[in-house]
Amino acid sequence: MPRIKILLFFILCIIKVYPQINDSIFSDRPDGRFISTYGYLITELENTKPALSYDSTMSKLQFYRWQDDVKAAMENIMKFPMNNNNLPDPVCISTEQKDGYVLEKWEFYPFPKCVSTFLVLKPDNVIDKAPAVLCIPGSGRTKEGLAGEPGIYDCYTEEISSDHVTMALDYAKAGYIAVAVDNAGAGEASDIEHYSNSGNYNYDVISRLLLEMGWSWLGYTSYLDMQVLKWMKSTDYIDKNHIILSGFSLGTEPMMVLGVMDKDIYAFVYNDFLCNTQERAVVMTKPNKYGNRPFPNSIRHLIPDYWRFFNFPDVVASLAPRPIIFTEGALDRDFELVKNAYEKVNAINNVKCYHYPKFSKKEDRLQIEKLPKGLDSKTYFRMVNVDPPSHYFKSELVIPWIDSLLK
Amino acid sequence: MPRIKILLFFILCIIKVYPQINDSIFSDRPDGRFISTYGYLITELENTKPALSYDSTMSKLQFYRWQDDVKAAMENIMKFPMNNNNLPDPVCISTEQKDGYVLEKWEFYPFPKCVSTFLVLKPDNVIDKAPAVLCIPGSGRTKEGLAGEPGIYDCYTEEISSDHVTMALDYAKAGYIAVAVDNAGAGEASDIEHYSNSGNYNYDVISRLLLEMGWSWLGYTSYLDMQVLKWMKSTDYIDKNHIILSGFSLGTEPMMVLGVMDKDIYAFVYNDFLCNTQERAVVMTKPNKYGNRPFPNSIRHLIPDYWRFFNFPDVVASLAPRPIIFTEGALDRDFELVKNAYEKVNAINNVKCYHYPKFSKKEDRLQIEKLPKGLDSKTYFRMVNVDPPSHYFKSELVIPWIDSLLK
Repeated sequence: MPRIKILLFFILCIIKVYPQINDSIFSDRPDGRFISTYGYLITELENTKPALSYDSTMSKLQFYRWQDDVKAAMENIMKFPMNNNNLPDPVCISTEQKDGYVLEKWEFYPFPKCVSTFLVLKPDNVIDKAPAVLCIPGSGRTKEGLAGEPGIYDCYTEEISSDHVTMALDYAKAGYIAVAVDNAGAGEASDIEHYSNSGNYNYDVISRLLLEMGWSWLGYTSYLDMQVLKWMKSTDYIDKNHIILSGFSLGTEPMMVLGVMDKDIYAFVYNDFLCNTQERAVVMTKPNKYGNRPFPNSIRHLIPDYWRFFNFPDVVASLAPRPIIFTEGALDRDFELVKNAYEKVNAINNVKCYHYPKFSKKEDRLQIEKLPKGLDSKTYFRMVNVDPPSHYFKSELVIPWIDSLLK
Repeated sequence: MPRIKILLFFILCIIKVYPQINDSIFSDRPDGRFISTYGYLITELENTKPALSYDSTMSKLQFYRWQDDVKAAMENIMKFPMNNNNLPDPVCISTEQKDGYVLEKWEFYPFPKCVSTFLVLKPDNVIDKAPAVLCIPGSGRTKEGLAGEPGIYDCYTEEISSDHVTMALDYAKAGYIAVAVDNAGAGEASDIEHYSNSGNYNYDVISRLLLEMGWSWLGYTSYLDMQVLKWMKSTDYIDKNHIILSGFSLGTEPMMVLGVMDKDIYAFVYNDFLCNTQERAVVMTKPNKYGNRPFPNSIRHLIPDYWRFFNFPDVVASLAPRPIIFTEGALDRDFELVKNAYEKVNAINNVKCYHYPKFSKKEDRLQIEKLPKGLDSKTYFRMVNVDPPSHYFKSELVIPWIDSLLK
């Protein structure tokens, strides 16, 4: 039955997609040249093989060298400032006893004219140095939401009665120290979004400013997160050998950056589907209702040069052998790539891959090596085994996995 | 009377603007630090003095060295491909005798999988090597519009009965060889915009693709224009010592790039207002109707790192002593900067500055050294002496000026 469904789905795709495919993404000239700038560029992007793509034929030694290359390239791309030293130490600005844990709020000072904040949830049972989790939220989320606290403004308050949202609180309840940050531009770091009673944070304008200045949203927010990570490693109650990074949705992006840059990180929680964003840009070519081909996402995801070096599956593969859990699937193709890396370093047990419940059975998943062009968002998600309504923090998978690592 | 108008305008601005100014663009902390990412970044941008800003105190010798520095920085920022040699020669694919000139259509081959096109308008009276003008259109315009020809698709046809549009035809009628190009992504280089009966070219998606790949729309389109320029210099009927670049609106951006990179260009027609885009981004902070602060323009204008080195007035100043005409004004402040450069190299007569007719009298123009924050688009344009409805190709100013140079 599922196979017939999949066949029908493909036939439907071909019918829906074909007319768009033929709209100048193939050159109709005998010499194969494109006159459409879009046609030329999308073809170029399709043919751009990132210089540091994971190669399953690497030897173990070559793999370790490749890891260093990935780290060096990531450092170049993220452009962390070189001469921004002697920053003041973070300062605890409030402490509150909660039910089973202490909630602290801290300020840190990543640049001379900038202050940022994070929350610490310290379970009462923590006495000596203990493992800790750095929690990075999704795009519509905040550190307050992660901690189960009301938002900085009423309109920023999330569904904090749900453990699908309160990642940091879930960890604290499970006995782990949790540190929660905001994404640059969101929550307490937002601008005037609360005046319009909105938690739709305006990432675009800050991303644009950063890009104009030669940086990127991901470089900036990862740099801030790195300061919090440094502070975590410096405290006397966090076991710096057991720091876990936990990223939800957008938060998986800085998580990957920090993971590559800091080899001290112990393990990773990847709570989104594992996406090949280069391929997504190449195949989501279906015109929108205005007749334009949209780009799959906003410029907060724009990282100049990233695809010249790697895609997310490559980056994640470079984290081997450190433990990682994926909670929201991917194409089996991409999970296999990551598993291959973990196998290479004899650590296959350190990678745990869950699909969305809807696609947990292999026969319900599409097995695709190369996605076709002409997809819209909905078709794309279906093809890569993503069930958008079930996108949430999966504490039910994550906490037992962390327990199994640490207890 | 005009002075009273200006005073009233300022009072109105302060009343309109003040509430927004206070919305977190000033830090309300004793230490002056920003918690809002936007507040921090906009302040950083405001305090970023480009490394190659024009300095009126430079000696003549220092000025020439600075010109070389501007050229070197522009080459770095524009990232023209290094290993893209041995391109096929352009090919003439059609020739048509028109009333007083021959219209040729040419193909050129800027990349192995890419073809692009340009038009040549050769007046009948041209016999020997003659001056020529490379015409670069605005964002909604095409080479066909510049040449007075119907669009590639009906919906791309412009107001070709108006010499406010037909830049290249205007030059040809005045006896000059005119070469007209498309902007990358527009007209014949567009994608599927004609299906929605639209001449709103989708620059955003191609700009995004280019930025992801580490390039920029301006770098790409300038590279294409540079190939046409090379061809112009190679023909036996164009006097390569008298090539003029003429840019309308968006087309002024590649014009500046080519002007800086190629010292052989003889003269420049700058048909837009001379804008300090860095300052514009800093001051246009007024929230839109959705309560968001917009960025002043789309990502086709996003050129990573540009503002770290210069702004348009600096770039134009670096063109001295080569003749240039501005047809649509600016702040007097910015014209004075450019004139200072031309004076320094004893070429003040080579710079001709016209304001919009509405602001031709000095007493009607605002004299502003530093614009205030909190502006929307309309207020900004008024403050920099721009009259948007009168934005068109000003052949009435340009042709006599070129005649005065060449005849």
